[in-house]
Amino acid sequence: MAEQVRAIRTRQAILAAAAKVFEERGYQAATISEILASAGVTKGALYFHFQSKEDLAFGVLNAQNQNLVIPDRAIKVQGVVDIVMLHTYRLQTDPMVRAGVRLTMDQLAQGLDRSGPFRTWAMPVREGLERAKSQGELLPQIDPTETADVIVGTYAGIQSMSQALTDYEDLVSRVTALLRHLMPSIVQSSVLTSVDISESRGQNVYNEAFAHSQSVPEAEVERAAG
Amino acid sequence: MAEQVRAIRTRQAILAAAAKVFEERGYQAATISEILASAGVTKGALYFHFQSKEDLAFGVLNAQNQNLVIPDRAIKVQGVVDIVMLHTYRLQTDPMVRAGVRLTMDQLAQGLDRSGPFRTWAMPVREGLERAKSQGELLPQIDPTETADVIVGTYAGIQSMSQALTDYEDLVSRVTALLRHLMPSIVQSSVLTSVDISESRGQNVYNEAFAHSQSVPEAEVERAAG
Repeated sequence: MAEQVRAIRTRQAILAAAAKVFEERGYQAATISEILASAGVTKGALYFHFQSKEDLAFGVLNAQNQNLVIPDRAIKVQGVVDIVMLHTYRLQTDPMVRAGVRLTMDQLAQGLDRSGPFRTWAMPVREGLERAKSQGELLPQIDPTETADVIVGTYAGIQSMSQALTDYEDLVSRVTALLRHLMPSIVQSSVLTSVDISESRGQNVYNEAFAHSQSVPEAEVERAAG
Repeated sequence: MAEQVRAIRTRQAILAAAAKVFEERGYQAATISEILASAGVTKGALYFHFQSKEDLAFGVLNAQNQNLVIPDRAIKVQGVVDIVMLHTYRLQTDPMVRAGVRLTMDQLAQGLDRSGPFRTWAMPVREGLERAKSQGELLPQIDPTETADVIVGTYAGIQSMSQALTDYEDLVSRVTALLRHLMPSIVQSSVLTSVDISESRGQNVYNEAFAHSQSVPEAEVERAAG
């Protein structure tokens, strides 16, 4: 068991180093040697966990999805907003998430499947919208599949603009502006007044989800390894 | 004058080749040798017009802005929609515009000022929204600066998603979906019913703007050189 924890710890150290190098240099310019040097592990250890640079990039992309679970909400649209706000908070605070976004948006990373992350993100958003629709929260013309794609695509652009203009400093205010522009076209106005899209929402949801993740065994291993 | 036309023609050939290479390979992987080979001009001719790869990239970015002028509209919000729809049409049909977008979104092109294009695009959109606001077309809470940034940022993401998923094949339908989600939060509903955001709008605006550009002398030189 101690060995298993050590292996997880090594894997986490490699991923953290890969995230740093990918974020700073981009996929194509990044080299395994740089990641090795930054991780402080042996070449053998790295290749035990990851076969190639592409493998490392997929590892970083997958590591974005931690054990953070947003509790079920009475208003289902709030759950959709919370996915967006939680990601926004993590994007500002977690290098792994920033590296994942850089890899996703990085059009030079032609060896990677760039469509994957768009699809991965659209899925929980669509499911949330479907639950909201079945509760009568959405305007009648809304198609959850189309609207989920609009939310994911527009979010990708807003974060990219925030990064280009202010290195994510104004991300939260740009994302709340986005939601103020989208939600009235999606949600019944009687529901909208009870949805929290304030700037502090992301951190609050993170604290809640993190507290919840502490009761999950895998998360404890991760924290021990982090 | 013939010499001047020839110089313009050479410059256009170099820019067309640069656009092709930048779009296919990205800024960092692209080389001046590739651009030279594709343009079929001498090295001397290329360096007469462009000093460096960065210079070529700026040339492509600037070449996006042609002489296409959208006529003034009675409903000012229609003018804003038309900027978006015209760009969408050109993105699907003009390699120079596609290369410009690739360079803009390309986070590896760290030598270039990536914030410029966001600002460049936000300006005409904001001006259009200001005119719409002064005519009472917008909802009272709308701040044209914020909303212009939302339109430009969301558009950037939607085009990126369309490129990643379908290589721009579904771009027009994704953009009209975007407008259907944004416009009701921006425009008075009494005005909205008279705004055309149909899928054919982009091509119609292009035809109109192109016909208009034929009366402008510089455009004639460009066509001769094209």
